[in-house]
Amino acid sequence: MRVEVISIGDELLLGQTVNTNASWIGQKLSLIGAEVIHGSVIRDNKTEIIDTLTSALAKADVVIITGGLGPTQDDITKSTLSEFFKTELILNNEVLERVKSFFVARGKEMLDVNIRQAFLPKSAIVLRNDMGTASGMWFEHDGKVVISLPGVPYEMKHIIQERVMERLQKQFNSEKAFHQTIQLQGIGESYFADGIKELEATLSKEGIKIAYLPSTSLLRLRFSCKDTINNKRLIGEAIKKIKSEFRNHFVGDDRKTLSEVVGELLIQQNAKLSTVESCTGGAISKEIVSVSGSSEYFEGAIVSYSNRIKNELVGVSLKSLENFGAVSQEVVEEMATFGRLKMKSDYCISVSGIAGPNGGSEVKKVGLVWIAIASADGVEARSFQFGDNRERNIISTVLTALNLLRCRLLPINKEKS
Amino acid sequence: MRVEVISIGDELLLGQTVNTNASWIGQKLSLIGAEVIHGSVIRDNKTEIIDTLTSALAKADVVIITGGLGPTQDDITKSTLSEFFKTELILNNEVLERVKSFFVARGKEMLDVNIRQAFLPKSAIVLRNDMGTASGMWFEHDGKVVISLPGVPYEMKHIIQERVMERLQKQFNSEKAFHQTIQLQGIGESYFADGIKELEATLSKEGIKIAYLPSTSLLRLRFSCKDTINNKRLIGEAIKKIKSEFRNHFVGDDRKTLSEVVGELLIQQNAKLSTVESCTGGAISKEIVSVSGSSEYFEGAIVSYSNRIKNELVGVSLKSLENFGAVSQEVVEEMATFGRLKMKSDYCISVSGIAGPNGGSEVKKVGLVWIAIASADGVEARSFQFGDNRERNIISTVLTALNLLRCRLLPINKEKS
Repeated sequence: MRVEVISIGDELLLGQTVNTNASWIGQKLSLIGAEVIHGSVIRDNKTEIIDTLTSALAKADVVIITGGLGPTQDDITKSTLSEFFKTELILNNEVLERVKSFFVARGKEMLDVNIRQAFLPKSAIVLRNDMGTASGMWFEHDGKVVISLPGVPYEMKHIIQERVMERLQKQFNSEKAFHQTIQLQGIGESYFADGIKELEATLSKEGIKIAYLPSTSLLRLRFSCKDTINNKRLIGEAIKKIKSEFRNHFVGDDRKTLSEVVGELLIQQNAKLSTVESCTGGAISKEIVSVSGSSEYFEGAIVSYSNRIKNELVGVSLKSLENFGAVSQEVVEEMATFGRLKMKSDYCISVSGIAGPNGGSEVKKVGLVWIAIASADGVEARSFQFGDNRERNIISTVLTALNLLRCRLLPINKEKS
Repeated sequence: MRVEVISIGDELLLGQTVNTNASWIGQKLSLIGAEVIHGSVIRDNKTEIIDTLTSALAKADVVIITGGLGPTQDDITKSTLSEFFKTELILNNEVLERVKSFFVARGKEMLDVNIRQAFLPKSAIVLRNDMGTASGMWFEHDGKVVISLPGVPYEMKHIIQERVMERLQKQFNSEKAFHQTIQLQGIGESYFADGIKELEATLSKEGIKIAYLPSTSLLRLRFSCKDTINNKRLIGEAIKKIKSEFRNHFVGDDRKTLSEVVGELLIQQNAKLSTVESCTGGAISKEIVSVSGSSEYFEGAIVSYSNRIKNELVGVSLKSLENFGAVSQEVVEEMATFGRLKMKSDYCISVSGIAGPNGGSEVKKVGLVWIAIASADGVEARSFQFGDNRERNIISTVLTALNLLRCRLLPINKEKS
């Protein structure tokens, strides 16, 4: 099943909205062996919609269009598709009732523009939208399928999951592809690639392709191949090898975030966690709490952004702050040690650094970050020199800190200590 | 200047990486009056690169290609472009030295794969990359320009800013477009559109287009037109009108985030801020700290995720926690009041809610959030009923809380109180 994704919206081309829809669709479809072969981003413009759709239908079996179905005046997709498929817009009473009840449930009044959303192309199968007022549409055309969906991400996702996936799977029976992605923290692309070059060559001979997907502080590695038992076995063995050789970097399968992996380890060990954060401003805590159920192991955090809070709330000594500065081994160790006692947790992560772009000095450059982890076994601190971009430094600190805790929690490392 | 952006990478089509590059380029180019007319996402595949480039050159003046320049084996853009432009790859000694020094500066060893990055097409102008080892390339072709850049976002951004923008501006002198975008918090697209429909009709007659860009809890509104003094004046007046009619929603120009706007108000009033967070887990604090210079007005935060921390660290009474529950007006008011005193700040935001997907009850549904703000004038709390998605509920809570503080800090509201 070859798929083309067309994203409509001036805001995407102008860059005022990031096209997260297309990537989500790609990810979802790869699970049923469909291959997105091309993505297009076009303007809210009739001619361009028609041209792009025509050329997409020449190459793909399925075309998924997102965007341009809202109630406001800049949306023209629905009428253009009606014209393309030589059908007409008719009032769908079921949809009208749903749109009405949508407003009733929220205690709001329905506006005239929303009534327009109940007019739908006669020849289309209506894909019900329980999350909003714009319905999805499924058109059949010379054995091919064209699906039009709203651009609001959670509405689009809902319709794909509930109304599209199963229907597509039934209609097409293409050869299944297999993808598996693992992630590593704190290792560069070139270094890692050099470290596994023989493994990569071996897999390549078997038709298993490896792609490197680096992002700030994380490296994802995707294995792609035909969905056979032998291929899956080979990939399983390769991952096992990587896991043992890069233990301090290997986070796991990328369906779980680093904070989920850490959360599972904490649950297994029945341990509680807290954080004391300076330069990250609560970003580590936020990442931990993004996992549903984190209240089982997460007590809380103190964001000690000012030195006063470090001293008064956490208990860091004024002497250490004066003698060594807020970004120092001594201070970060006190933050973790006292934070752990204060919040009565088994583990406490602390960080203090210079996120930038300002605040650096000759000795302590922008990007210098101290991270400590305290537990009943004591406290350990390490320093890192990241770059000069504030946002990336914060992300790197969050991921590095979580990975240090992950390593500390690994049974093999616990045995050693 | 008509531009087409081609993003190369299987990872983009498979959805394992979100295409933030294309949106950033669109945004950047619109500032110099260039219009991105089409975006394509294609595979790491020679034929597709050539086909897409050929069709792009038929419509656009400038083609910007990102991705496929890394040192690892899945990257083939450079050799494909050399073939397309009938030139050859030659060793560039200046680039080789830079790649070498890049590794020396990081105390790492250069690998063979990195030497390949110093081989560049003879006919291309090399666009120096100070952030990484893959150079950008500028090709001229029948009066058109093709630019190839690495896919790593900060490397691509650096090269566009430092090496591409000025050169493009010199080479093309297209009619300048004008875009201005404002943002509103906590108002729905349909409601707002209905509220400004006359204003929109008036602007439309003058050739000024309005686009609605909704995202979780934020609505951005983009005005687009030809860059004339009269148009700018009309848009200025329209924004003034919206600002006064939707004061509690109007955040401002979208070049400033809500946390930057709040930060400016705090600096103007020489006031300090702290937060006490439960369901957001530090996300409000993180958002405040994302602004460089926030240490001027931000003291810190307590993430009181467990009830124990709410009681022991913040000082919320056990009686209130037992009688009303953690998600209640009483508790959130105590959190803000005591947090403010504890952290010695002028303002303290507190939040407590049920982020979901679990933890709701008949009376307190998932998505119920209480937000309080305490100041010397006292404490005020409000409840909100958001949806059932954890991630969106956290974003909505962060933005709503910051906007409530913004409203509280507005001079016009301070006079009233």
